[in-house]
Amino acid sequence: MVAFIGTNDLQEHLATTRPEGAIGELVRMIGEDFRRWPQFDKTARVASHSPIGVIELMPISDGRQYAFKYVNGHPQNTRDGLLTVTAFGVLSDVATGYPRILSELTLTTALRTAATSVLAAQQLARPDSRCMALIGNGAQSEFQAIGFHCLMGIEELRVYDVDPQATDKLVRNLSAYPKLRIYRASSTADAVRGADIVTTVTADKTNALILTPGMIEPGMHINAVGGDCPGKTELHADILHAAKVVVEYEPQSRIEGELQQMPPDFAVTELWQVLNGQATVRTDASQVTVFDSVGFALEDFSAMRYLEKHVLKDSARVLDLIPELMDPKDLYGMGMARSASAPASVPNRSTAAAC
Amino acid sequence: MVAFIGTNDLQEHLATTRPEGAIGELVRMIGEDFRRWPQFDKTARVASHSPIGVIELMPISDGRQYAFKYVNGHPQNTRDGLLTVTAFGVLSDVATGYPRILSELTLTTALRTAATSVLAAQQLARPDSRCMALIGNGAQSEFQAIGFHCLMGIEELRVYDVDPQATDKLVRNLSAYPKLRIYRASSTADAVRGADIVTTVTADKTNALILTPGMIEPGMHINAVGGDCPGKTELHADILHAAKVVVEYEPQSRIEGELQQMPPDFAVTELWQVLNGQATVRTDASQVTVFDSVGFALEDFSAMRYLEKHVLKDSARVLDLIPELMDPKDLYGMGMARSASAPASVPNRSTAAAC
Repeated sequence: MVAFIGTNDLQEHLATTRPEGAIGELVRMIGEDFRRWPQFDKTARVASHSPIGVIELMPISDGRQYAFKYVNGHPQNTRDGLLTVTAFGVLSDVATGYPRILSELTLTTALRTAATSVLAAQQLARPDSRCMALIGNGAQSEFQAIGFHCLMGIEELRVYDVDPQATDKLVRNLSAYPKLRIYRASSTADAVRGADIVTTVTADKTNALILTPGMIEPGMHINAVGGDCPGKTELHADILHAAKVVVEYEPQSRIEGELQQMPPDFAVTELWQVLNGQATVRTDASQVTVFDSVGFALEDFSAMRYLEKHVLKDSARVLDLIPELMDPKDLYGMGMARSASAPASVPNRSTAAAC
Repeated sequence: MVAFIGTNDLQEHLATTRPEGAIGELVRMIGEDFRRWPQFDKTARVASHSPIGVIELMPISDGRQYAFKYVNGHPQNTRDGLLTVTAFGVLSDVATGYPRILSELTLTTALRTAATSVLAAQQLARPDSRCMALIGNGAQSEFQAIGFHCLMGIEELRVYDVDPQATDKLVRNLSAYPKLRIYRASSTADAVRGADIVTTVTADKTNALILTPGMIEPGMHINAVGGDCPGKTELHADILHAAKVVVEYEPQSRIEGELQQMPPDFAVTELWQVLNGQATVRTDASQVTVFDSVGFALEDFSAMRYLEKHVLKDSARVLDLIPELMDPKDLYGMGMARSASAPASVPNRSTAAAC
């Protein structure tokens, strides 16, 4: 049987662990996996695009375990009361190919995305960073805010969204964190002014110019989360030209990231190289750094490991998703197990069978 | 909520519909989808190989619905009482990206594979075919036997497997079809002798020579099912040179099918062209035809449509795989719904949080 982790299980888990507890442990586990990067069989995700969205499959394996995530991106969904991004995933044994755990990954993706942003910022942002601009106050924004407040020492948040109600919701939810000072900016430029870290997490599937060169100050770290599929970017190309850019998995980021705007020979560094000390990105306090985050399958592999370790209980629900057979070569016998009573030699009339 | 179809639901369905009823309707629905081939967004499946097996993801979309299948292939699994092939799948709406149905596809894959074999044989085999050799008597064999007996008029089955117990099981299971005469052959050559149709459905992940040129007689149709991943073939290359070969989706078959043994310019016909009358393969009764079947995502798309139409009940089990929100931009609020009681400003001690 396959163990199932649903949104209800995640809600129960977060009620005790708190988002910052989950994000903190995910920073550790995602970092653990990025540091053993060469062990993974990696592929750019497989996308099925439509005019209004995308459905993607993100497989990865370390030779012992295999994980994949199904995730969609449909910015117009919110108009109909639906989420822009939903996701679920599976963790399997490579030795047998059998799936072991099926889990919700919508909430989990928001947690692991914030964790990956923090993991990168710990390496790329100035250690004395205390103020973060948060552009885009939608479904992902609280998780980014809490991650950077609780795990990166961010004390002031400068927030902006074209939809004031989204900002209302963000401010309301963050009232649970009284030590975090929140400034409601009148524009993106107003939010970015004076920030140490700028996080962009907007949703429109367009080549937007959320950040322009005039807004960027020396020493800033830009955590660019919202540019994550072809035709969906947030930064002006000149910002990238003037900065040092770090990505998760270069072949995928060239297709989906802010990087899609840049020439093929534009130099970037992969996050695992920074974590392993093979590359140094921030050389001084005036350096501008960009984490061009699109989300990579390894982060979901780590997230599935987290769910198995911290959320899965012995009392977990199980699904008859895969047959259990007495004789593995007798799939037919298993399939017909219920039909003992039915006279096998008299096919149902509804069939066109001549036997 | 996502509707769930488990192996128990399939067992109940087959008890009333019978395998031949399901295979017959699948022949119709798979044919329906192959005939609208240009409407589908097609990709070769994404495989993650290990020394002892493979895990594959098979996505496809017709612009309105999206389906994917997870399937593994681990021939050594039977030694441990596990299935060589297990599978499950999801059917989603392209407009929202939301998954609608999660289903078992292990039993269903055996049914749709047999249906696809019948669909191809209806076009490629001699109409007067009455005798079929069945080489490989494992998990898939009964479904092939029943499909060809009930829907193609096969009256005599000549069966062989290197494992006599597999053949015992096949013969036992087929006793439910008394009109089908079964001959237990002493070898593959003995089984193939005089057959109108030869179906190979063996499991070893090797470049095997199950069929050699000396066994092939004029007018035979070869339904080659077992050669379905790199390094896994069943036919001697000279059989293909001397025959007309039909495949499902050429780019995938070049990688995974019997075709992997042939030069890149070896001519093949795609099944949809035959179904649409754009290509004629059997020109006379002495023609040798080969259906080099590897299994294509379109067949699983059709199978998911079948499950939704014929198996899914109003009483179906539902899973909280995807969150349901009052405010789609308030994922955080949904995630923390259970924590109202917990004092939000006092993070759990277990967290390293500084907030």
